Amino acid sequence: MRLTRKGQATKQRIVRTAAGLIAERGVAGTSIENVRTAAGVSGSQMTHYFRDKRSLVQAVVGLQADAVVHSTELDSFDALREWAKTQVQRQVDNGCAGGCRFGSLASELAESDPATRRALAGGFDRWEVALRDGLQAMRDRGELRPDAEPDRLATSLLGALQGGVLLTQTHRDPRPLEVTLDAMLTHVESYAVRRGQGN
Amino acid sequence: MRLTRKGQATKQRIVRTAAGLIAERGVAGTSIENVRTAAGVSGSQMTHYFRDKRSLVQAVVGLQADAVVHSTELDSFDALREWAKTQVQRQVDNGCAGGCRFGSLASELAESDPATRRALAGGFDRWEVALRDGLQAMRDRGELRPDAEPDRLATSLLGALQGGVLLTQTHRDPRPLEVTLDAMLTHVESYAVRRGQGN
Repeated sequence: MRLTRKGQATKQRIVRTAAGLIAERGVAGTSIENVRTAAGVSGSQMTHYFRDKRSLVQAVVGLQADAVVHSTELDSFDALREWAKTQVQRQVDNGCAGGCRFGSLASELAESDPATRRALAGGFDRWEVALRDGLQAMRDRGELRPDAEPDRLATSLLGALQGGVLLTQTHRDPRPLEVTLDAMLTHVESYAVRRGQGN
Repeated sequence: MRLTRKGQATKQRIVRTAAGLIAERGVAGTSIENVRTAAGVSGSQMTHYFRDKRSLVQAVVGLQADAVVHSTELDSFDALREWAKTQVQRQVDNGCAGGCRFGSLASELAESDPATRRALAGGFDRWEVALRDGLQAMRDRGELRPDAEPDRLATSLLGALQGGVLLTQTHRDPRPLEVTLDAMLTHVESYAVRRGQGN
């Protein structure tokens, strides 16, 4: 569907509005009508851009997947520690409420329908690739030992982040996320090539 | 409220039925009426045991918290590896669908109301205590170094489990859980006192 510039702007406004409502109330607690009213569009505009709730939810998954991918390179131990610090700070700034927008979507929608689940898996993949590429660069430069496996370490870091955020959200306390990420980063750092170690 | 033995059985049947439906459809997708029909009880019985959906959901949180706490001691490296293997196998047996029953409840309900959130946090606490007690016993016996912190390691293992399960559920693949738990257990094992190391 080709859209005019104005049409694209309206569609984006609908998706952003839906993403905001869903982050607050979950997918189940958000109706098409809620989104339509909050975005200030007519029923026919709504139907024009999204034929049903499922297609709107998939657009929200895509938006949140875009939002989580880190924009800076994660290719040094310092950058990874900084990334972890940012994740913890984000929770502190939100009073540790709300969890991870993308992770919450995944948990709510992983059993909904195959296309949505695949979209969620694709979002996690993009996130993991960003971590893996940084770790691969570190190994290529000889900062990580040859037995470090970037794909396994990237999966582990993403897993630690997701689980840590869920514990932090449930406890309303940044500590579980801080602790879980610190433990996993210490594991990653155990693969560091020490100066003078020469492997 | 004092209940007769028959009353207790009926109440338990309602909670178990609700837990099963919620595991399949989520809390939002499960109505009191769904539970009443599936459990085969009358409307007045339902109201007698649970005055509203919230009190029923809290009973389900309690049931699932009881269910997740590991019944065997987790006080050796072998026992922890076995625990991880069991967690991965459980996902494989379920076709990697459904996630963690308790974790899914936490994700769906962490923002619902303070009492439910606290019940969820209490469930995670019990789980963490089981892990921490095992690690503490290992440190007391000199199998873990004195600088190992059982509470931090327990939080990290629970975080790795929760995040790993979410990735496994979303990808329908046991690998993320296996990888994330393996990484965190390797971190725990890095605190092992080697024979002849003498600290």
